[in-house]
Amino acid sequence: MSNTVDSNLKAIRYDRGNLDILDQLQLPTHTEYIPIKNTEDGWDAIKQMKVRGAPAIAIVGCLSMAVEIYHMEFQSHQEIADYVKDKLNYLVTARPTAVNMKEASDWISKMLQELTTDSDLSVHAFKELAIEAAEILFEDDVTINKDIGRHGAEHILNHCQDKDNVNILTHCNTGSLATAGYGTALGVIRALHEKNRIKHVYCTETRPYNQGARLTAYELVHENIPATLILDSMPAILMSHHDITAVVVGADRVVANGDTANKIGTIQIAIIAKHFKVPFYVACPLTTFDPSKESGKEIAIEERPHIEMTSIKGQRIAAHGIDCWNPAFDVTPAELITGGIVTEYGVFKPSEIKEKLTAKKMEKDKMNMNGQMRRRSSYSSFKTIDNGMIQQ
Amino acid sequence: MSNTVDSNLKAIRYDRGNLDILDQLQLPTHTEYIPIKNTEDGWDAIKQMKVRGAPAIAIVGCLSMAVEIYHMEFQSHQEIADYVKDKLNYLVTARPTAVNMKEASDWISKMLQELTTDSDLSVHAFKELAIEAAEILFEDDVTINKDIGRHGAEHILNHCQDKDNVNILTHCNTGSLATAGYGTALGVIRALHEKNRIKHVYCTETRPYNQGARLTAYELVHENIPATLILDSMPAILMSHHDITAVVVGADRVVANGDTANKIGTIQIAIIAKHFKVPFYVACPLTTFDPSKESGKEIAIEERPHIEMTSIKGQRIAAHGIDCWNPAFDVTPAELITGGIVTEYGVFKPSEIKEKLTAKKMEKDKMNMNGQMRRRSSYSSFKTIDNGMIQQ
Repeated sequence: MSNTVDSNLKAIRYDRGNLDILDQLQLPTHTEYIPIKNTEDGWDAIKQMKVRGAPAIAIVGCLSMAVEIYHMEFQSHQEIADYVKDKLNYLVTARPTAVNMKEASDWISKMLQELTTDSDLSVHAFKELAIEAAEILFEDDVTINKDIGRHGAEHILNHCQDKDNVNILTHCNTGSLATAGYGTALGVIRALHEKNRIKHVYCTETRPYNQGARLTAYELVHENIPATLILDSMPAILMSHHDITAVVVGADRVVANGDTANKIGTIQIAIIAKHFKVPFYVACPLTTFDPSKESGKEIAIEERPHIEMTSIKGQRIAAHGIDCWNPAFDVTPAELITGGIVTEYGVFKPSEIKEKLTAKKMEKDKMNMNGQMRRRSSYSSFKTIDNGMIQQ
Repeated sequence: MSNTVDSNLKAIRYDRGNLDILDQLQLPTHTEYIPIKNTEDGWDAIKQMKVRGAPAIAIVGCLSMAVEIYHMEFQSHQEIADYVKDKLNYLVTARPTAVNMKEASDWISKMLQELTTDSDLSVHAFKELAIEAAEILFEDDVTINKDIGRHGAEHILNHCQDKDNVNILTHCNTGSLATAGYGTALGVIRALHEKNRIKHVYCTETRPYNQGARLTAYELVHENIPATLILDSMPAILMSHHDITAVVVGADRVVANGDTANKIGTIQIAIIAKHFKVPFYVACPLTTFDPSKESGKEIAIEERPHIEMTSIKGQRIAAHGIDCWNPAFDVTPAELITGGIVTEYGVFKPSEIKEKLTAKKMEKDKMNMNGQMRRRSSYSSFKTIDNGMIQQ
């Protein structure tokens, strides 16, 4: 394991049987990878927030299971299925509110249980199936994010005045550190940078946890993307002084009418962007789409502890006795998402999202089970189709 | 001197011959008054930012001179005039960019020099004149702020739907701690609270120096005004979830067309207020009006050190290597000041400000010299007209 960082920032370094993760608790002051040797290590890393971001939590959890069983011997299909199910359920308890880990756990456990009676599979092949399931989660996340990045970059370039001088404002952290390695909104920025179109990126501090100042700024510096940190109070002066091509943010949840829940401060930037006629984009995978809710009014706003606002690193920064309001996210109405919603299937208007994504979501749910088997048969070519994201 | 705080928060406690100031460097964790015995103490307090806010700096500076000469004996008018001029010039050097101290210094020095040949004045009476000049600055600031508060409160009550449930959002610190004791925007809030009309006040954190979280929150807690701290990213969610009656902010400079420079983040709140149809007010004294500039485009934006954004209390909070942009204020265009500009002479539309205030400013400049003499003759009643702001 190395403490140096290679040219592509990776929060997760995986090779079959080995997993290292970038310890995000130490960012931005220290860049250190720590080994995850088993599900105990995975549980601790998730619990202590050494890894954060819903997709990244699920991937690290499942890969910690893959690494653990890689070094074990089993006697039967059922023994593996039971063992994996137990370990995944255990991992879900590290941060039970992160839905992606629960979904991944359910999917792998159900798939393995259905295949326990498959006489064509040896015990060894059955174990490999469980390992591959975790690897596919990892691989798919990067592939999906790269598709999001490509669609978003193309859409922005097709709709802007000066294609060679693109300036983007983003909010919070939606990059390698929150995903398997490419990012959603930051994936769009990466894709634009790969096309040599980025002139400058601006990232907000994103109080109270400063994910922008700590993590997005870290990723942008690491990737040598020209970038400037601004405070959460500065998007308006930024747009009044600089020619901002587009705002691109991530999403925690997009509902049927296109209303979007995202990190606190997002609606504010959307209102300001509309005032200055700057296109406002939301970038997120299909998994973020929740057709079960008709509008943003149905989304409950999570309120977090006041201490996040009143202290930084254990030091009091607000007057004693003051009441605080600390909603973790806000809901941006569909009409303010003027650029569009960028997904792995293309860029859609918020009003189109229900029609375009509901069928995709049902289709994908059905495909998951069959897909796992189909992918397994082509395992030998796995490492050549993974876009280089699995570390050797 | 006492470390306890009485019912009215006062950053400056003055009785002829004695001056104590609240040490703002220790806020919000410690409430401690420190004695200012002479101009050396005054210079140190200003330099070290134990007192801040342009009006408060000028008042503490001049009162430190008044306290020093109160305990001294002089032989002639000219000796006093020279001594005071030297000391005031020295005080200006503590923070030369704060224009109010320079203006006060010039006004007192010029007035004394003109009266050195006045044979009706004894040497003792001449010394009292210098002391009174400083006291008048102190007294006037409170009187002006109370007028601002009264006009602002009346205007808001006359134009709102629910006069008994007024909710105000403010930004930065514009209260007792930045002025002689009542505040501008916070003066409007105080006046509404004195009328029992305030339901709730919301104050923004105001990064990077957190004047809202540290100082405004401190004042609101101290005054028992129901209040909640929000982050700079939250004005939009606040207005979408709560019925905000008005936004009231202060000003660093108002130019001829009504464009207003104020703490970074102000224009953003004005845009959001317009989006949610919430009236947006600027509260400031006549001295803030600068008719020499036609529009906000002529106002230079002060950019401050990056370390204010990247560190808090010596701890690094942003990624190393990231560039920062740290403008200290922004300019809100007149058309976004939808409530009006609240002054000691009334509430005006930004488009009226040039007509209404230019004559007042010329008139006031002329009056200052004569006024000092007129006031001196009524010194015996001074303490009865000071609204109780001079501490015994």
